[in-house]
Amino acid sequence: MSVTAAKGFQAAGIAAGIKENGNPDLALVVNTGPRRAAAGVFTSNRVKAAPVLWSEQVLKSGQLSAVVLNSGGANACTGPKGFQDTHATAEKVAEVLDIGAGEVAVASTGLIGLLLPMDKLLPGVEAAAAQLSEHGGEKAAIAIKTTDSVHKTSVVTWGSPRTESGGGWTVGGMAKGAGMLAPGLATMLVVLTTDADLESEALDRALRAATRTTFDRVDSDGCMSTNDTVLLLASGASEVTPEYAEFAEAVRTVCDDLGQQLIRDAEGASKDIKVEVVGAASEDDAVEVGRSIARNNLLKCAIHGEDPNWGRVLSAIGTTKAAFEPDRLNVAINGVWVCKNGGVGEDRDKVDMRYREVHIVADLAAGSETATIWTNDLTADYVHENSAYSS
Amino acid sequence: MSVTAAKGFQAAGIAAGIKENGNPDLALVVNTGPRRAAAGVFTSNRVKAAPVLWSEQVLKSGQLSAVVLNSGGANACTGPKGFQDTHATAEKVAEVLDIGAGEVAVASTGLIGLLLPMDKLLPGVEAAAAQLSEHGGEKAAIAIKTTDSVHKTSVVTWGSPRTESGGGWTVGGMAKGAGMLAPGLATMLVVLTTDADLESEALDRALRAATRTTFDRVDSDGCMSTNDTVLLLASGASEVTPEYAEFAEAVRTVCDDLGQQLIRDAEGASKDIKVEVVGAASEDDAVEVGRSIARNNLLKCAIHGEDPNWGRVLSAIGTTKAAFEPDRLNVAINGVWVCKNGGVGEDRDKVDMRYREVHIVADLAAGSETATIWTNDLTADYVHENSAYSS
Repeated sequence: MSVTAAKGFQAAGIAAGIKENGNPDLALVVNTGPRRAAAGVFTSNRVKAAPVLWSEQVLKSGQLSAVVLNSGGANACTGPKGFQDTHATAEKVAEVLDIGAGEVAVASTGLIGLLLPMDKLLPGVEAAAAQLSEHGGEKAAIAIKTTDSVHKTSVVTWGSPRTESGGGWTVGGMAKGAGMLAPGLATMLVVLTTDADLESEALDRALRAATRTTFDRVDSDGCMSTNDTVLLLASGASEVTPEYAEFAEAVRTVCDDLGQQLIRDAEGASKDIKVEVVGAASEDDAVEVGRSIARNNLLKCAIHGEDPNWGRVLSAIGTTKAAFEPDRLNVAINGVWVCKNGGVGEDRDKVDMRYREVHIVADLAAGSETATIWTNDLTADYVHENSAYSS
Repeated sequence: MSVTAAKGFQAAGIAAGIKENGNPDLALVVNTGPRRAAAGVFTSNRVKAAPVLWSEQVLKSGQLSAVVLNSGGANACTGPKGFQDTHATAEKVAEVLDIGAGEVAVASTGLIGLLLPMDKLLPGVEAAAAQLSEHGGEKAAIAIKTTDSVHKTSVVTWGSPRTESGGGWTVGGMAKGAGMLAPGLATMLVVLTTDADLESEALDRALRAATRTTFDRVDSDGCMSTNDTVLLLASGASEVTPEYAEFAEAVRTVCDDLGQQLIRDAEGASKDIKVEVVGAASEDDAVEVGRSIARNNLLKCAIHGEDPNWGRVLSAIGTTKAAFEPDRLNVAINGVWVCKNGGVGEDRDKVDMRYREVHIVADLAAGSETATIWTNDLTADYVHENSAYSS
């Protein structure tokens, strides 16, 4: 279903030969209208890949007719030639679809610092265009994988089920990402589509609100990518203009689902860790504390070893500027308050850590704000994947 | 030699039974004068162990007669009882040495969140006092080890060699630390001694200047401890008051040497990585960029895999607020400028990464300031040590 679950979209995914192993590596998503509104959120890394620079520019119009995505090469740190290649890719899409290049977003993922093989990519665009289909969403999702073990898609249909006779509207999407997951955003490419009839301003508002509490709070390894891109395209094909709050909730639900799928597929991970900060004086404090816990390598190792090491949680909290008193901190791991008032709490032997999901609650006892950050454990497999694989 | 290289100091290291394996775990360092000036620098973690809270307090006088250190337990996150135990430890030292408890600094290292076995520690103080010797520096250094594979000591003697007839002065010291190394400070206990005749103000100034560019720039795993303590004690026994600049340089040299020893002994590491940032607009920028590179797990994995992955260096630089233009960044790895002007530079196959030391130079091309941060690679052994060992 993926990006073609919503009406008014076609997609394709093919093997263009960008990846040496012959796996699918080029995806095309086309908005067939009637509306072509769009919004996007990009990496906050100041070293931005050429396709990010391009797509930020074209999105200023609030309109997109197509998105072309490739895996097998990030086209980051590739200088003026890299930007020319992105431009040429958009021009090629425009040519085969008979639209303007300024309506085409480009996204790339893979190794940094290598030019893309344009002699393969440009013919690939033609081949993908020839296979565009209202059932092409899954193939597109598969074509953007890098080290992902599975492709990731999600769909929410609001109101009555989608039928030929209409009724309701849908938000669907696809994502890729399995490492270099950190806020602002995770290393991800995400394309969301909807047949809701909305203008770009509403899309932008809903997308920013959704990513702020979903993708931006997925922090697998603290490493921020040069290529992160999240796009939301609206076709208006449902002819329904939903209430903003309902639409925003649907977008948030899809983003949350895709974010969870990213964490569950993170490179080498054996535990998914939900870090829930409560009792914070402000949401910013809660996020800062959550990130500092989520990025603590020693804690991530301890969780890997199924050790409910609350001392490492307190060590991490202590590095932040958040409002708290050390002797009022409480920490629960999988429901057991192993740390109370900054010291020893319930018996740590009561903590059952056999399952993949681990839930850490850090109570700052300084207010009523909360935030949840998702991360993974740190494992020998993570080291192996990232020392053997150049990305 | 260690803390007894300088005249006017005695030390001892014994096994008090705090560690279940029977290894040495209690050290005592005594300043026999005539001067008893002292200075200290402590963790900037807001969750501070009881001995840190105690020692910060007693150091306000600028005077210390003794330092008692234990491994086998950090006495962190142990509440009022933990602080009472630290106080009782200082009182015991005061009693056996016939001094005031307010002249005794306490330092602890080991597992967080456990109370110390005072029934073993207090008799241990008596036993250590009975073994105090001007040759006890090595034993003291051995007794503060936790996961350290070797004990760490360093000595600088300034001017003419130390002889019975006097002449010259000495700065010596011991350190422990092998993980949780991060700025402000690394997880370390360090005691430095000197027989230079200086007041506490000069000691404090020299110590802060030295730690700022040495221990504070050793960043093994980005994790900041609750117990970091660096103390500098002066006996005045050389009867020489050195020039401040010479003394500061000697302190810096000993701190730098000990910091290097900490990095070389970091848990599970197979590479020591020198991250040198040059061309920065300010020293703060250089430090911020250096830390962001040093803490990038993906880069640390790549270095482990002997992959000169400059793209991950640029990704890390891009997350900072430092002044730079992405298309002017240059990166050298082991002398080969693999990234020039933000893109591909010299052939990465020229980079020889077979040796333990790896030298990364990041040129921001934005000024003339520099800073060097030391870190390690991220290895499966690090994960193993920190998932199997509770600390």
